Amino acid sequence: MATQCSRFDLQGTVGAARAGRLHLTHGVVPTPAFMPVGTYGAVRGVGPDDLAALGTRMMLTNTFHLWERPGHETVAALGGIHRFTGWDGPILTDSGGFQVFSLRDRLSLDEHGARFSSPLDGTRRELTPELAVEIQETLGVDVAMALDECLEQPADEARTREATERTTRWLKRCLAARRHADRTALFGIVQGGVDPVLRRRHAEELGAMDLDGYAIGGLSVGEGTEAMLAMVDAAAPVLPSDRVRYLMGVGHPSDIAEAVARGVDLFDCVLPTRMGRHGQAYTWGGRVNLRNGRFREDPSPLDPSVPASPAARMSRGALHHLVRTKDDLGRRLLSMHNLALYQQLVHGLRTAILAGDGDGLARWRERAAVATHPPGKASGPPTLAPDPGDG
Amino acid sequence: MATQCSRFDLQGTVGAARAGRLHLTHGVVPTPAFMPVGTYGAVRGVGPDDLAALGTRMMLTNTFHLWERPGHETVAALGGIHRFTGWDGPILTDSGGFQVFSLRDRLSLDEHGARFSSPLDGTRRELTPELAVEIQETLGVDVAMALDECLEQPADEARTREATERTTRWLKRCLAARRHADRTALFGIVQGGVDPVLRRRHAEELGAMDLDGYAIGGLSVGEGTEAMLAMVDAAAPVLPSDRVRYLMGVGHPSDIAEAVARGVDLFDCVLPTRMGRHGQAYTWGGRVNLRNGRFREDPSPLDPSVPASPAARMSRGALHHLVRTKDDLGRRLLSMHNLALYQQLVHGLRTAILAGDGDGLARWRERAAVATHPPGKASGPPTLAPDPGDG
Repeated sequence: MATQCSRFDLQGTVGAARAGRLHLTHGVVPTPAFMPVGTYGAVRGVGPDDLAALGTRMMLTNTFHLWERPGHETVAALGGIHRFTGWDGPILTDSGGFQVFSLRDRLSLDEHGARFSSPLDGTRRELTPELAVEIQETLGVDVAMALDECLEQPADEARTREATERTTRWLKRCLAARRHADRTALFGIVQGGVDPVLRRRHAEELGAMDLDGYAIGGLSVGEGTEAMLAMVDAAAPVLPSDRVRYLMGVGHPSDIAEAVARGVDLFDCVLPTRMGRHGQAYTWGGRVNLRNGRFREDPSPLDPSVPASPAARMSRGALHHLVRTKDDLGRRLLSMHNLALYQQLVHGLRTAILAGDGDGLARWRERAAVATHPPGKASGPPTLAPDPGDG
Repeated sequence: MATQCSRFDLQGTVGAARAGRLHLTHGVVPTPAFMPVGTYGAVRGVGPDDLAALGTRMMLTNTFHLWERPGHETVAALGGIHRFTGWDGPILTDSGGFQVFSLRDRLSLDEHGARFSSPLDGTRRELTPELAVEIQETLGVDVAMALDECLEQPADEARTREATERTTRWLKRCLAARRHADRTALFGIVQGGVDPVLRRRHAEELGAMDLDGYAIGGLSVGEGTEAMLAMVDAAAPVLPSDRVRYLMGVGHPSDIAEAVARGVDLFDCVLPTRMGRHGQAYTWGGRVNLRNGRFREDPSPLDPSVPASPAARMSRGALHHLVRTKDDLGRRLLSMHNLALYQQLVHGLRTAILAGDGDGLARWRERAAVATHPPGKASGPPTLAPDPGDG
């Protein structure tokens, strides 16, 4: 049953696209919203004050990594996740399931939980639904994610069905294990692989459980943009309209804009920071690789139309130099630039939806498509399936 | 002859200690002043806006590194060193001599200049006094340093005298090579190894040349604090009182406070940033190594008495975690913390000197000594030679 520490107001729609407000223990998050990823509690090289300056309203950290190092009890001893990170706004943690299941050969799985040897120090550990909730509540996050069984793709229907059903059983154990429902919300995760029937059925099943919020999980693992958006199309329409919808681990700017058009409210992704660390900058004129020697003597600014970015007015030549000399500052500035553009995108989408402006929404989808691809390579969104939400 | 683009006002003294203002093309620098070091034009992980927020008034970059990559002509094509770095305040470059002479086995030296194979790509290069000036003027810095012969220690008196004399001849060639004396000042460098007689003689010789400013160079290369301060004691009193005095590459907080007490105005050093990158933080309670496991569950703040530091109020446990997980953010925060403490130190010294407050100056020297050493290891400045400037 939904608890008091999480509430979602729907403020406006354009077709399937939604604008709203997610009320959590540490504040209110206007949606659509994008959460930067701080794996070990920090977005590499980017501080909590920087995140705020970039327009961030909520961040994500990794349960698995913090459980391993420094340990959730240590974070609690240091005053909890907000004091630990310095970020005093809302924080969501994944359940750790995605990381555990990516250990594959170190992993053994049964109904009780997932046993594995730690990649950090080789110790045997077991993650159960109950422990996932305990870790996240001990960290003191605003939103905990239920432990789900993440399926490796491709998987046949029987295997997909089995994992989906186990995800539901584990969700019920997570719900029963809560000790701090007064301050930590618990979101369930819709699974179902890339099978639209299983996806829809699982979304309906979880939708009937009156949860604090709903994630669409198990995607952005190589299934491709079209399959990913098809799963959003299968799940989103049957989820309760008065609960937030979170698409896990997605994606490029165009993926986010397209998923918003299909009714998703909340996102996280490592792409803006990972791309930035590798010299790639999203700009409203296209995605550029600043390692490229052609930028060496380029005095033009990166993209002055991203006002919150500290790199926006720097010359591409100077940024090329920072990337080539592997300076921490290059990684930092490009990570921040990309995060600023993502925040600008979700803010633009939100503004258009609140205004009931279908044309404005369509323009942001086009801009997102341009930003995602190298200059001149995008003529529109990567998938332009008919969408009743547009215009 | 001193040029129009550099002027030094002496505002106050306490004994030998001085407070003043250094007027340069891109602004005024209150002294004593500390310049952070941006090797390739950037202080690793710390942006120009950050430097300003920490209280920085002037920065240093490395001629040698920028000459190699991306090249001074490229920096000029990108709009000059200020546009390139994003730092619009005064910038000083070393001459590149220190880096060239540290190549030792790759180096051959004669009166004309220093030939070496590039550590970056193996190409043969030659640095001459004329080229050192050309590179720095092309970069567009506020202060260029003359090319000096940096001597490896220990060196006998004959060798020291020879290098000192060559430094004077090269300085004259540097002066003759200037093309932009309207905007780029040129400072000479007092050499003389660790021989107080040669140091004093060289300071007198250069002092008579009416230069824009005077550096004391060739120190902080392993000679020890006592020998370093003895060289300051030899050189500073005979340098013209109406010109700025710059002690190159020095040092710990205590070294800076002690050199200020002996009449030095300007400093640069990699220590605050290098120490920070290795997990070491200077605090007013002593220098701490945050890698140490004893900080793992320490909820106490790093040092709330460094107000400009973004790490000051973070828990030592959280900083320990950032250092252990090798996050760029840990390096950044500790570099910034150390730089903030250095700026606080020179500001404190300046305030005491301007007020004619000998006791206040003595207290800052004591605080600097405490900050330099592990807690409980400092009972006073590392060298407490009688100093007429104190009290």
